[in-house]
Amino acid sequence: MKIGILGATGAVGQQMIQCLIEQDIKVDELRLMASRRSVGKEIEFKGETLKVIEATENSFEGLDVILGAAGGKSSKHFAPFIKKAGAILIDNSSAFRLDKDVPLVIPEINGEDAKKHNGIIANPNCSTIIAFMALYGINKKSKLTKMIVSTYQAVSGAGIEGITELDNQIEALLNGKEIENSIFAHQIAYNCIPAIGTFLADGYTDEEMKMQNEGRKIMHLPNLNVTCTCVRVPIIRSHSISISFATERLLTIEEVREAISSSKGVKLMDDGINNVYPMPISTSDNDIIEVGRIREDKVIGGYSLFCSGDQIRKGAASNTVAIIKCL
Amino acid sequence: MKIGILGATGAVGQQMIQCLIEQDIKVDELRLMASRRSVGKEIEFKGETLKVIEATENSFEGLDVILGAAGGKSSKHFAPFIKKAGAILIDNSSAFRLDKDVPLVIPEINGEDAKKHNGIIANPNCSTIIAFMALYGINKKSKLTKMIVSTYQAVSGAGIEGITELDNQIEALLNGKEIENSIFAHQIAYNCIPAIGTFLADGYTDEEMKMQNEGRKIMHLPNLNVTCTCVRVPIIRSHSISISFATERLLTIEEVREAISSSKGVKLMDDGINNVYPMPISTSDNDIIEVGRIREDKVIGGYSLFCSGDQIRKGAASNTVAIIKCL
Repeated sequence: MKIGILGATGAVGQQMIQCLIEQDIKVDELRLMASRRSVGKEIEFKGETLKVIEATENSFEGLDVILGAAGGKSSKHFAPFIKKAGAILIDNSSAFRLDKDVPLVIPEINGEDAKKHNGIIANPNCSTIIAFMALYGINKKSKLTKMIVSTYQAVSGAGIEGITELDNQIEALLNGKEIENSIFAHQIAYNCIPAIGTFLADGYTDEEMKMQNEGRKIMHLPNLNVTCTCVRVPIIRSHSISISFATERLLTIEEVREAISSSKGVKLMDDGINNVYPMPISTSDNDIIEVGRIREDKVIGGYSLFCSGDQIRKGAASNTVAIIKCL
Repeated sequence: MKIGILGATGAVGQQMIQCLIEQDIKVDELRLMASRRSVGKEIEFKGETLKVIEATENSFEGLDVILGAAGGKSSKHFAPFIKKAGAILIDNSSAFRLDKDVPLVIPEINGEDAKKHNGIIANPNCSTIIAFMALYGINKKSKLTKMIVSTYQAVSGAGIEGITELDNQIEALLNGKEIENSIFAHQIAYNCIPAIGTFLADGYTDEEMKMQNEGRKIMHLPNLNVTCTCVRVPIIRSHSISISFATERLLTIEEVREAISSSKGVKLMDDGINNVYPMPISTSDNDIIEVGRIREDKVIGGYSLFCSGDQIRKGAASNTVAIIKCL
């Protein structure tokens, strides 16, 4: 299989290269594409040194699959040229996710949807993947009806620059220097910022609405109602999510635990007394979604849980690469 | 007024000394008490240098009010001796909060309850104070019926040692050294720990149940139902809370905003497009509770909001000191 990565030098693009190896994808050619400023950068792949080339409208000839990790604007611009070259775009941006003829896929949940593609397959939002990985086993026992969600999102959700900004701010604070910020609207070191994405007229952000809009599509649950609050926290990697949810039939707590522990790609970490629960440090650089803190939630008429997952891996790169196998 | 502070050298005790000055409490004597290992420590108060003495059963003679900042065990032990000395204990620990004859007071909300004391008045849990400060204006317009809450709690909630542990871990990570932890069950630097307090049989922690149990008592709402998830985040100071809530009558968003902006001790910070929302860094070392991110929440049938407040100040020391004025 001849694969191209669009945006190969970013946090997600670099992780995709590693995931191609880990997931044992047979790669006959790997073409690394990025914007002009990264041209010539050398990246190792299976003992070979590959040079990054500039992504242009003619970069896609001869490729079978393009993994899109360059953001929505770039994906939108290049999609017609990828199609013209006869390749499939598996895109990590939000550009096409809600388009009717674009499947939105988490392989463990709706891998079969990938086959209905029309040249483009979309990878869901990172927090959305982590939340529904935690919940899909439960949904098999009884359909999800509603969720109230608060996130704890790592700075690398804003790319490598997000990590650099946190690191620089912590160093500045330790050395009594002035703090600078450009990636985040405020200081993120030792702070939380309850705003991710663009604000909409109703006060939600577009990032917050993805949990409902993308969740409905992935889960085939057009009536699922979700309230989401997205919060950036000073953590390098792995998003965590506090979820209260209800299902059509009230499950027993044993059913909820069983559903989670039998879900592929998910690990039950639910033994608080022994300090076992999901955490960013235990999910970082790991494809598994951890789920724990499972308790009856009388307010929503269901359960509460807490989950954590590496948003660069399962929330982005590993999920995108795994979609190749659905084809 | 002759005032004693029990646990004067801790994070809350030290803050109480500052709050006595800021709130202009007339202090004829200030007696600083702590455990034996702090004896002799010198603390400045209004230009005088006071020496910390050991708290013993005979330390309370001649005092009018004791501010308790030494933890539940200490408060329980000394309470009978404080009573015998004819002083009133205003206690920050959880020891007496749910006792029937002990008022649990947030002055802005139920200051009049303080007068019904029987020698002891309790200061509520820090997150509980911050959440209900955000909501009490709304509750005046229509009674709160239910809440789903996720917290973002600073390390100083575990005392000065919590701050030291976070600082040491960040320094160790920057210098490639081994990380040590004793205050928190896991590394807290660049991590969240979704477990605060002691685990109960139903999977909740005692810290999580305070939001409902103490909330019901403070608000005089015996049927209020609250689901709470408490999470420690790598932040020095100020707890933040994501809250979904419903009221008996569905308010308009204008009513919600008006209720918050007219609440004493609360600041409406609700202009996301201009990057205005509650944050730990803007509430740190400040008595004001910030509230923002107000949106209709169709899942709970009410609204969602995000609030932040300094848990050492309004969540503990300033609230305790302010209770003196209710008497």
